[in-house]
Amino acid sequence: MPRYFLVIEYEGTEFSGWQRQDGAPSVQQSLEDALARLGEENCLVYGAGRTDAGVHAEFMVAHVDLARHWSAHKLPLAINAQTGRRDLAVLRALQVHDEAHARFDAVERAYRYRFLDRNIRSPLRTHHVWHRNRPLDVEAMHEAAQFLAGKHDFTTFRSAQCQSASPLKSIDHIKVTRRGDEVHLDVRARSFLHNQIRSFAGSLDMVGLGRWPATRINDALAACDRSACGPVAPADGLYLMDVVYTKQLNVMLRGQSVGDQIMP
Amino acid sequence: MPRYFLVIEYEGTEFSGWQRQDGAPSVQQSLEDALARLGEENCLVYGAGRTDAGVHAEFMVAHVDLARHWSAHKLPLAINAQTGRRDLAVLRALQVHDEAHARFDAVERAYRYRFLDRNIRSPLRTHHVWHRNRPLDVEAMHEAAQFLAGKHDFTTFRSAQCQSASPLKSIDHIKVTRRGDEVHLDVRARSFLHNQIRSFAGSLDMVGLGRWPATRINDALAACDRSACGPVAPADGLYLMDVVYTKQLNVMLRGQSVGDQIMP
Repeated sequence: MPRYFLVIEYEGTEFSGWQRQDGAPSVQQSLEDALARLGEENCLVYGAGRTDAGVHAEFMVAHVDLARHWSAHKLPLAINAQTGRRDLAVLRALQVHDEAHARFDAVERAYRYRFLDRNIRSPLRTHHVWHRNRPLDVEAMHEAAQFLAGKHDFTTFRSAQCQSASPLKSIDHIKVTRRGDEVHLDVRARSFLHNQIRSFAGSLDMVGLGRWPATRINDALAACDRSACGPVAPADGLYLMDVVYTKQLNVMLRGQSVGDQIMP
Repeated sequence: MPRYFLVIEYEGTEFSGWQRQDGAPSVQQSLEDALARLGEENCLVYGAGRTDAGVHAEFMVAHVDLARHWSAHKLPLAINAQTGRRDLAVLRALQVHDEAHARFDAVERAYRYRFLDRNIRSPLRTHHVWHRNRPLDVEAMHEAAQFLAGKHDFTTFRSAQCQSASPLKSIDHIKVTRRGDEVHLDVRARSFLHNQIRSFAGSLDMVGLGRWPATRINDALAACDRSACGPVAPADGLYLMDVVYTKQLNVMLRGQSVGDQIMP
């Protein structure tokens, strides 16, 4: 059975998350159901990660084994025609070798958390940002975020439901920048713990509001204690922005020209 | 009765447009109903312009005469608490003199039309862009758009329902630029004819797709004939971006700091 990588964009608001669960609409289920309607029954769409309810993705990657050979150009169009959803689209498909794995082969994931700091919420960005009605101190947030860079025990910034065997993770890159009336927290790592970015975001928000000194992030990290974490920021502002593989695969997954033939 | 200017943002998808009409939800009606619930009954919210169904606004301005004196800080919060809608928000309020007029005092309006040119639509930008599944030639579109700058008879680019007494308008500034996977058409003028920007967008789209040479925009303009216009682009991609008044008023309407007291 040929294996395909799929690049997927979704607006997470109406989904219960990436992962299939009974009685709730998930991204995985929507894709598997669409494939079933194309005659590809009982396939398993295996994501590079699991996003929670309400979390968005500009660039999720998944793999799936299909019974038939599909053209890389037609497969996204065929799936998109069958989902019946406007909040989900397969952007590209690529046939890969049988051992390629969307989750285990990924060497880095990039997430963005978007804060909107102005007195009134934005109707054009409903569900797309976390609205803070007081100004955020971006420099303080960025300074505080640097304590989180590198390899640490992130017990403080990990949900009680986290299934990871170890709380040790390595943050490759973290920065906080202003973009007009938004503040963006960008984080890159090989992998993350459950709720790690939203725990970072909620804690850095306390620094941005001036309620915590920047150094309290370092203290919270060192405590290795979930109770030292700030509030967990809501899902609305969180985006999976990128999943990185080997160089050749990255280039093929990002084929940008319209109508590109990206089958290798 | 004190007069107030209101700065308003809305997501136009669920609205029948700015203007009140029987049996359909309009922005104007939503604001007037919210004010009635605040005890300000039978007031008329007078917009700087009328946007059609589905058209968005990042910066609409309107004026309204109220029975009571309101603090500029509290009025937006009070209205927003009463609309019961997430797709509409008053961003700022400003008390003005009794003769100030949101429509007649405006010296310039700015609109943006957003095209998305990539093979697959964007779930995160549903209703927010016009999806073109072939690449647009931005340079050709910009060159063609320059024929539309200046004062002309815009009969070609005017809806049959247009109520303007004259088809003469003066386009102050028009440009087409690429922003990542989007193409933006930005147009500024003192005022516009009905469907003028969407007529520009649909015609420039023909140039962008290579179906029309850039000079055909000039020919269409010179024809002064509605049948020479390209397709009218859908409302989804259109945004009212700005309404410009006198210098002092502009500064006050744009008060950016959170919690600003913008009453003069």
